[in-house]
Amino acid sequence: MMELNPVVDAEHLMREFEELAGFSDAEPPAVTRVVFTETDLRARQFLKESCAHAGLLVREDALGNTFARWEGTNPALPAVGTGSHMDAIPHSGRFDGTVGVLGGLEALRALRETGFQPSRSLELLIFTSEEPTRFGLGCLGSRALSGAADLGALDRMVDKEGRSLEQVRTAAGFTGPLTAVTLPDSYYSAFVELHIEQGPLLERNGVPIGAVTAIAAPAALRVKFEGTGGHAGAVLMPDRHDALCAAAELILDVEKSARSTGSPDTVATVGFCSVHPGASNSIPSRVTVEVDIRDIALAPRNQVVADVKHVVAEMAARRGLQAGVEILNADPPATMAPPIVDAVLAVCSQLGIACQRMVSRAYHDSLYMARICPTGMIFIPCRAGVSHRPDEFASPEAITQGVQVLALTLAKLSSD
Amino acid sequence: MMELNPVVDAEHLMREFEELAGFSDAEPPAVTRVVFTETDLRARQFLKESCAHAGLLVREDALGNTFARWEGTNPALPAVGTGSHMDAIPHSGRFDGTVGVLGGLEALRALRETGFQPSRSLELLIFTSEEPTRFGLGCLGSRALSGAADLGALDRMVDKEGRSLEQVRTAAGFTGPLTAVTLPDSYYSAFVELHIEQGPLLERNGVPIGAVTAIAAPAALRVKFEGTGGHAGAVLMPDRHDALCAAAELILDVEKSARSTGSPDTVATVGFCSVHPGASNSIPSRVTVEVDIRDIALAPRNQVVADVKHVVAEMAARRGLQAGVEILNADPPATMAPPIVDAVLAVCSQLGIACQRMVSRAYHDSLYMARICPTGMIFIPCRAGVSHRPDEFASPEAITQGVQVLALTLAKLSSD
Repeated sequence: MMELNPVVDAEHLMREFEELAGFSDAEPPAVTRVVFTETDLRARQFLKESCAHAGLLVREDALGNTFARWEGTNPALPAVGTGSHMDAIPHSGRFDGTVGVLGGLEALRALRETGFQPSRSLELLIFTSEEPTRFGLGCLGSRALSGAADLGALDRMVDKEGRSLEQVRTAAGFTGPLTAVTLPDSYYSAFVELHIEQGPLLERNGVPIGAVTAIAAPAALRVKFEGTGGHAGAVLMPDRHDALCAAAELILDVEKSARSTGSPDTVATVGFCSVHPGASNSIPSRVTVEVDIRDIALAPRNQVVADVKHVVAEMAARRGLQAGVEILNADPPATMAPPIVDAVLAVCSQLGIACQRMVSRAYHDSLYMARICPTGMIFIPCRAGVSHRPDEFASPEAITQGVQVLALTLAKLSSD
Repeated sequence: MMELNPVVDAEHLMREFEELAGFSDAEPPAVTRVVFTETDLRARQFLKESCAHAGLLVREDALGNTFARWEGTNPALPAVGTGSHMDAIPHSGRFDGTVGVLGGLEALRALRETGFQPSRSLELLIFTSEEPTRFGLGCLGSRALSGAADLGALDRMVDKEGRSLEQVRTAAGFTGPLTAVTLPDSYYSAFVELHIEQGPLLERNGVPIGAVTAIAAPAALRVKFEGTGGHAGAVLMPDRHDALCAAAELILDVEKSARSTGSPDTVATVGFCSVHPGASNSIPSRVTVEVDIRDIALAPRNQVVADVKHVVAEMAARRGLQAGVEILNADPPATMAPPIVDAVLAVCSQLGIACQRMVSRAYHDSLYMARICPTGMIFIPCRAGVSHRPDEFASPEAITQGVQVLALTLAKLSSD
């Protein structure tokens, strides 16, 4: 293992980033790639061809999760997985998720070039819909793979146009029961995801690699207010039950609650707000907001969830309107497997690259993969910690180093 | 005049309401009919055919305002106009505006049936885009007709897809310079608009007819916040400049400001709120809201406008984001012409129908027509004062009485 020297073809890899960013429904440099749109399907085709070209065996499951396999010399052993997602929220950037997909592919290509023969099979995994854009719930693919989801409920979820997951995946060519998606026990002996940090710490510290020790606990709530509409000119203020005023109170309460848990790591965001009927001269009768709440500890996160429920109930009574809180998900934090954290640290030490242990505030498919196999994550810095924006940026050097570390970590994990 | 007995064909009129409501982009009973959409153009065609069938001479101007004329015996005299609008905000009802359009047409038909010969020509006017849905500004047609608008600026306004008024009207077949739209002085000697009250007073008082004495002063503002986007998991609370939290503060301040002017007639509404990028796990970077503010007096209305400007500036500085307030319109109130108010009262007295003087809290095209000719409005009750909602309702009896009063008022005004 010590002599293994996988060489990353940075130029080729950067061309692939450029090409993948072109599969987008936004004006460059912004990227919008929503699961099971025409654009998403074209991007998947591009990736499958790249995997096949690299000599990997490609298969897809009923949810569109894509597996590209390099058969090991001992194929009966549980495999080692790597990968990430390639869907992109509206008007975001080109590195979130894709660093683990294209970088994972490049790691496998670079290892093959060295003549390395893995004992365990190595698999690149491209997860379906890590982002919650379409169905309000993230990590669809990894939830199903890990058995963390009620598959029937998952399939019945509807997007904003009222189309169910089952309908849109079937239309996209991914058919059959979701039960076949869940991986058998011991399918993987390890899973490692390469990802941009999406925070400022590595850049601030001048450290090129983060070995993730835990992933924060995310919760997502959907709150619907139903008030009384009417003409904005004719209904006097005391007679109003304005659903948007109620939502505005909640938005400010969410901000205040997140700032007052006592934990500096609590974050809460209302990123989605839809107003019905949405005309400037009509009192809003129905408003839906989505609240995203996270902490690396469960208690402060749950405190904000409880605050939201309390505030919504109190306000609905006070304002004389209907309101309901739906918990879309409320997952516990995940601990990364110490042997994988140690493997990443050891590889960095071999390569003479600085590496720091850190937590992930963003969630990832690894949150769910950790339920079924020892899981780890490798972070690389991104400029100013910016993510989910068109100016999201990871340098070719940072990506190259991340791919090198990933390749040697995968070699280590697949050799025993 | 005293013997004139126009008979309203209520059954035929109700069939026309039913038919017009069918030109809609919403599921019944909701009506959505936005200016210069395919649906709007089909509805216009239906109305033009109905007018032609009634023996009226139809012309359209460069903005799509439609005139259906019954030539008087003395056509050199300024004409008498009636009419309203037929565009409908998203998910609204079938009576707002259309009562004055279909009811106005029926009034002319009923008068013709009696053998009445007007001295002045009578004209039914269907105004383009009374509702601000598409361009954020209401009363496009009547603003242009009355010379109240900067026609160049009007033509350059863009809709939410970035298409200018000039582009969409041209695509709809309404071409040529808007300067030709403004009516010459003394085109009309009087204008009378029949409309549902859109408030609860007539129904509450059991009075079938309202003679409007003044129209409230409306103002519309567009406020844009530009903060800093980012990943909802990774950016800690103290580092945020969330555009939606800023908008939420404004929404609550607008509500509070309207309640504290000292005038019970002040109303203010945020009916439109768009969030960019609009994903649940992304911090909102840009939010646009539209604020609608009205009072029958100018001072309290202007006080809320000033409050909005002040609050936005203070908040932008405190929250570290950019914000701008654009005044879309801020019109003074309009006084209805006393001779027309008196004519309505006299007709009601002739018919033995109760009638009350009242103000209009909603604005109408009559707000602008009052700038160029003596103008009046006739209100009929609508159920529970509800408007701009799918359950908006005016009874056939209420509409029939309104049309009778309108017909006799038009006969009076066109006879001298």
